[in-house]
Order: sequence, then C-alpha cells, then structure tokens
Amino acid sequence: MQFSPSFQQLIEALRCLPTVGQKTAQRMALHLLEHDRSGAQGLAQAIEAALEKLGHCKSCRVFTEGELCPICADDQRDDRLLCVVESPADWIAIEQSGAFQGRYFLLLGRLSPLDGIGPDELHLDQLEVRLREPALEEVILATSATIEGEATAGYVTELAQGRGLKVTRLAQGVPMGGELEYIDPSTLSLALRGRREHREE
Amino acid sequence: MQFSPSFQQLIEALRCLPTVGQKTAQRMALHLLEHDRSGAQGLAQAIEAALEKLGHCKSCRVFTEGELCPICADDQRDDRLLCVVESPADWIAIEQSGAFQGRYFLLLGRLSPLDGIGPDELHLDQLEVRLREPALEEVILATSATIEGEATAGYVTELAQGRGLKVTRLAQGVPMGGELEYIDPSTLSLALRGRREHREE
Repeated sequence: MQFSPSFQQLIEALRCLPTVGQKTAQRMALHLLEHDRSGAQGLAQAIEAALEKLGHCKSCRVFTEGELCPICADDQRDDRLLCVVESPADWIAIEQSGAFQGRYFLLLGRLSPLDGIGPDELHLDQLEVRLREPALEEVILATSATIEGEATAGYVTELAQGRGLKVTRLAQGVPMGGELEYIDPSTLSLALRGRREHREE
Repeated sequence: MQFSPSFQQLIEALRCLPTVGQKTAQRMALHLLEHDRSGAQGLAQAIEAALEKLGHCKSCRVFTEGELCPICADDQRDDRLLCVVESPADWIAIEQSGAFQGRYFLLLGRLSPLDGIGPDELHLDQLEVRLREPALEEVILATSATIEGEATAGYVTELAQGRGLKVTRLAQGVPMGGELEYIDPSTLSLALRGRREHREE
C-alpha cells in the first residue's frame, strides 16, 4: 500500500494511542484530514500544551499545571481522610464515584522487589510527609487486589500505624448487580469473611 | 470532577477522533502523559505536518504531499483502467485488496441534488479530463450501493459512454464466507440476477 509519507507518519503516530491498531489509525487519520482539520489542529495544540504544562501536584502527585492540583488546593475537602491509590486512573475512578471528599496520594506504581521497585523508587518519603499532617486521622488503602498491591498496602499500613493513624481498606465482595452464581470463589470467600450485620431500617 | 485545565483540554481534544468518547479519551490522555510522552510529542508533530503538507493529488485527488500521489506517479500501473471511488477510505479498501493495478479517481462525495450537491460541487470536470486520456479503455464504478451512489454511478456512466469507454461496476452478491441463511433478501436477489456459468477447472 503506497501512502504518501506524511499520511503514513500520521497513521503510525496515531498508533501510540491505547487500543488503536492499523485499521483504526487509518480511519482516524482520514477523519481528521477529510472532516475535522480544525479538530486536528486543536488536538496537536492540546497535546503540546499538556506535555509542556502538566507536572505532578507536589502534594498528591496528580497531573496538574501549578504546584497544587485543584483538589489539594480546595479547602472544602476533608483533611482527616487520606486515600492512597496506585495510579491516576484509579484516582479518577474514585473521584468520579463522588463518594469520597477527603485528600489523595498517588503512589504512581507498586512495590515490586522482583522488579527492583522499592520504597525509594516510589518516593514514599513524599507519603511520609503527608502522614505527618496534624489533621490526618485515617488512611484509606485503595491499592489493587494483586500481590504487588497487597505488598504495597502492607508497607503503607506500617508507615501509617507507626504514626498512630487508623488504616482502612476498600471493602471486597460482591459487586453491585452481581449475580452470585457468576461470582468467582475467591471473591465469594472474601465476601463471606467480610459479612456485616444486617438490620431492616 | 476537577481536572486541571490542560488535562481537561487534552481529553476534550481527543474526542474529535472517531469512536472516542469521554472514557476512552481519559484513558488515552493518561496513557500519553504517564507512559508515552515521546509518542505524544510525535503525534502532535505528525498531525501538524500532515495538516501543513497534505493536499489532494491533482490527478486522482488522494491525499498527497506533492502534485502527484505515489500511485499516479507510478508508471507500472495500468493506464487502461480507471477506478472511480467516492472516498479515500474506499480507495484504501480497494488498494489494500491488492486486486487492482490500474488508476484511481476520487469523487470526494456523491451527487445528492436534495442537498445541493451536483456535478459542479464534486468538480466532475476534473474527472472529464481523466476520461480524455488516450490510453484509457475501461471505467470501473466502485461507488456505494446506496441511492446517491447509484445516481453518481449513472452520471459517471453517461460521461464515460459519451467518450466511447467501456463502463463496468463491482459485482454485487454473496460475500466471502457468507452463509446464505443470514444474507438479506435484496443481496440474494442481486446475487441471483448476477449469476454466472460455473465450470469445474
């Protein structure tokens, strides 16, 4: 297939996007060139601007322009609660649930001694600074339910308990709308162990 | 959800891509910022370069850098065959089949009198120039099997026959691997009318 060089390069470049293969990249390139040149111009500028301006919030490490992200700068949030998550995607998921009004800290990774990722690589000294904040009462662990996630949770728990803080984890169990017959045995076992007293209200 | 402005703008900008909604745009933005900053830089540059450099081939109207696209400039292609397609996407589909070695002309639209799109809007005078090429013998109509596609095919047929050229259309019928019970009645009807004599070889 003989595409002209700039067109071929645009297709190749679009493939850096997740889930975009050759076919989708072709369709995207044609769409931009044929139907949305101003959108394409805007996209190029937005990428350049994001790369240039976005760094990590010095308090929670979310992507942000200034020193502090909008959440850390918001004095309406609850200083008593600190939610520790692994990645920006996890942070977005929790924030979009609308169920949490406290503060965040992003690990930007997980402890994984086999891959040489220890507390220093995750810069957990920045977390220790957060744990020293006087208003803080509870650390909520929202790390993944994987081996590395568990190891990371264990380490953070030690740090937090060392400072006399309450440490909690997200509940594990049956998801909303989950039908019991399709739930895997490990999840059911966690749901049984984590059962709670039930009262009619 | 409080994203910082550049991050929010990047998400919005990514939504100009076809099939990309809010969730996918978020995932793409995070991926670019977290895992592929050099890919993101390359994408911004490829878009800028494509917008700046790509115009239409003056002969067939495919996207290209110079005056002529690689196919029109290739003297190995068969000058006797001219395939008329509607869009760059159709052109790519035929070219990728590897079954056609002739020349192309892109209509970049369809005749649609109700929408005010006539021969002048499609610049069919450029097609007439192609039809006057001395080596040309056959015009292959590869327009869509829609009402506008048929109308466009009819108009191109008149132009070509007026110059004594043979005019053919893509065969319509059962697709490769198609199971008869799932084929729609109109397609089956076309396949019956277009039946061919069959011989063991």
